[in-house]
Amino acid sequence: MIDMMKKKIAILGSTGSIGCQTLEVIDRFPEKFEVVSLAAGFSLEKLARQVHKYRPRIVSIGSAADLTVFRDMIPGDTVVAAGVEGMTEAAVMEQVDTVVTSVTGTLGLIPTIEAIKAGKDIAIANKETLVAAGELVMSLAGQKGVRLLPVDSEHSAIFQCLNGEHRVHVNKLILTASGGPFLNKTKEELLTVGIADALNHPNWSMGRKITVDSASMMNKGLEVIEAHWLFGIDFSSIEVLIHPQSLIHSMVEFTDGSVIAQMGVPDMRIPIQYALSYPSRWENEFPRLDLAAAGMLTFEKPRTDVFPSLELAYHAGKRGGTLPAVMNAANEAAVSIFLAGRIRFADIPALVEKVMVSHICKEHPGLAEILDSDSWAREEMQRLTPAQGRCQNV
Amino acid sequence: MIDMMKKKIAILGSTGSIGCQTLEVIDRFPEKFEVVSLAAGFSLEKLARQVHKYRPRIVSIGSAADLTVFRDMIPGDTVVAAGVEGMTEAAVMEQVDTVVTSVTGTLGLIPTIEAIKAGKDIAIANKETLVAAGELVMSLAGQKGVRLLPVDSEHSAIFQCLNGEHRVHVNKLILTASGGPFLNKTKEELLTVGIADALNHPNWSMGRKITVDSASMMNKGLEVIEAHWLFGIDFSSIEVLIHPQSLIHSMVEFTDGSVIAQMGVPDMRIPIQYALSYPSRWENEFPRLDLAAAGMLTFEKPRTDVFPSLELAYHAGKRGGTLPAVMNAANEAAVSIFLAGRIRFADIPALVEKVMVSHICKEHPGLAEILDSDSWAREEMQRLTPAQGRCQNV
Repeated sequence: MIDMMKKKIAILGSTGSIGCQTLEVIDRFPEKFEVVSLAAGFSLEKLARQVHKYRPRIVSIGSAADLTVFRDMIPGDTVVAAGVEGMTEAAVMEQVDTVVTSVTGTLGLIPTIEAIKAGKDIAIANKETLVAAGELVMSLAGQKGVRLLPVDSEHSAIFQCLNGEHRVHVNKLILTASGGPFLNKTKEELLTVGIADALNHPNWSMGRKITVDSASMMNKGLEVIEAHWLFGIDFSSIEVLIHPQSLIHSMVEFTDGSVIAQMGVPDMRIPIQYALSYPSRWENEFPRLDLAAAGMLTFEKPRTDVFPSLELAYHAGKRGGTLPAVMNAANEAAVSIFLAGRIRFADIPALVEKVMVSHICKEHPGLAEILDSDSWAREEMQRLTPAQGRCQNV
Repeated sequence: MIDMMKKKIAILGSTGSIGCQTLEVIDRFPEKFEVVSLAAGFSLEKLARQVHKYRPRIVSIGSAADLTVFRDMIPGDTVVAAGVEGMTEAAVMEQVDTVVTSVTGTLGLIPTIEAIKAGKDIAIANKETLVAAGELVMSLAGQKGVRLLPVDSEHSAIFQCLNGEHRVHVNKLILTASGGPFLNKTKEELLTVGIADALNHPNWSMGRKITVDSASMMNKGLEVIEAHWLFGIDFSSIEVLIHPQSLIHSMVEFTDGSVIAQMGVPDMRIPIQYALSYPSRWENEFPRLDLAAAGMLTFEKPRTDVFPSLELAYHAGKRGGTLPAVMNAANEAAVSIFLAGRIRFADIPALVEKVMVSHICKEHPGLAEILDSDSWAREEMQRLTPAQGRCQNV
């Protein structure tokens, strides 16, 4: 029943924003894809609907405690698994060609590494994997000869700008940033913003964690580190440029002064499709960029005094070792504590920095050291933000 | 004395704007180039200085009448020639690798064709060659396996955007246009503009003829036809977009909705260098694009009611045969008559259209038919604009 002409896809995080949009892309090219495994967390009803529609061989859920309930929600011939082990099983199964890693957070790290070891191409939407374990993952991908195909709009843009070009001619990467909902806020105004404000992104509809990261600009910081690893470019040659309209998705400046930019409407289905169609491009009916209708594109430098997360990320990236993993885990924990209403938005970078400062960095960490650092940072963040403390601006 | 490691360059039109900037690029990479021939028109002193500096084997001047005078201005071992024959001699000489065709007007046609026949790569800055004889030139270039490397900033941009991409994935080309000095003028206001107004281009410093063409948007029309031939794209898939800041030099929309753009400061040395360095890129110290400093890019649709030349060019391009040659020659004549103060700026497109309407078009013309049509159109333009008539707005 396996169609050899179709690309076999595993989606880790299939009920999230990127996961659902990946399935939308797949829906438009039914002759090109077969979904052979799905993994998600706790949106069991949504996942069950996906299982009925795509009939994957394996489906994995977040917790083994839900296995019995979930078993009854799906067809009997589907293999069901749970947790990181289940997600890994879904990723490494023999038939899989490409794994779309669209889970949020370091949760994606182990399944991604195992998928690379199993020789699967990775459509990488889980930026934390490269932030926490860039050195490890890139060296493994190199050994195994697997492709890491970026799904993030910025990295897809740079990947496209580098088509047919030599890396040695790259002068710098310019990652664009919308600036998020707080683009024009002052440092003082950021002290009083609430959860709903932080979740109100002007251009992109995304998951909650990444939306808060966009508001703090930590998302751009994580992308800087991701770009460093994906494209092998020094941090000193990666710039961030505020571009509120999000129509230029990123750019590459070459040594001769030419700048190549990739543009498009802010629609994640375009970079998702490119990651799956690469090196080809497929015709689709997604909305088209209309610059005359847009009228204007604007640009400004990021205000690092107001958004310190960006500098934290550059610092962590340049320092290397376990520090990026610590920063990433501390941030993930802080965002979750913010979304629980226990700290203010402006506390996030201050707390992340505190955890980073107290970390004793290890060089060239292996997976165990990365995961240890990750856990340590989360615990440290919990220690700094006792559950009884509830802030006023919620 | 010929250095085999250096690229041997012939420059046709070496004293013009593109010619001089080509020499500036060559000056920065003395280890990479040798100038083996130069050709120019009537700027004899400037040409003589170039001969003393670059010591070409052959130099050609505009008119045989100046040969004796010019002979005394340059070193005795330089071969001197004149006219189209001399320019052709400079282009086809055995040592030449690449001919930079930066003469203005159909004057460049015969030397370009002969250079292609002699197997020389062409860095093409003479857009009239492709406008008047696109079918002929492209088929010849295909037969001879020579490369046509675009120098125009727009075509260089598209050429770069197509790096590593398949033509079959191209949805459309988007040529940007500054809109020139009359961008915001009304049809009525255009009736009273003078020569100095038309020569006052906001972004680019160029020769007089191309500057007037930019003001009327005929330049963009010629570029549309040039793009059609260079990239093999239907006229229905070539769009013009007004972008007054001239920082995006042109774009390609692909079938998947991705748009790739090439950007840079408006400095012709960048596309000239790319045409000479292709497929490599060389580090230089030309000014760099700073989008944060630029702040804003704007876009609008061209107003074809106010600038009818653009539609004339689309019409001529789609119709094909000898009509583009006729339009181009009629326009060249009309611009020259305008610059002589004998007609108004707004008369140019009206007169060009008149000549086009009275032309009996021939299909798949050979060189003789193209040159005949060109001469006919110039005579027709002279007939329509008797020398005694001097307009009031000069």
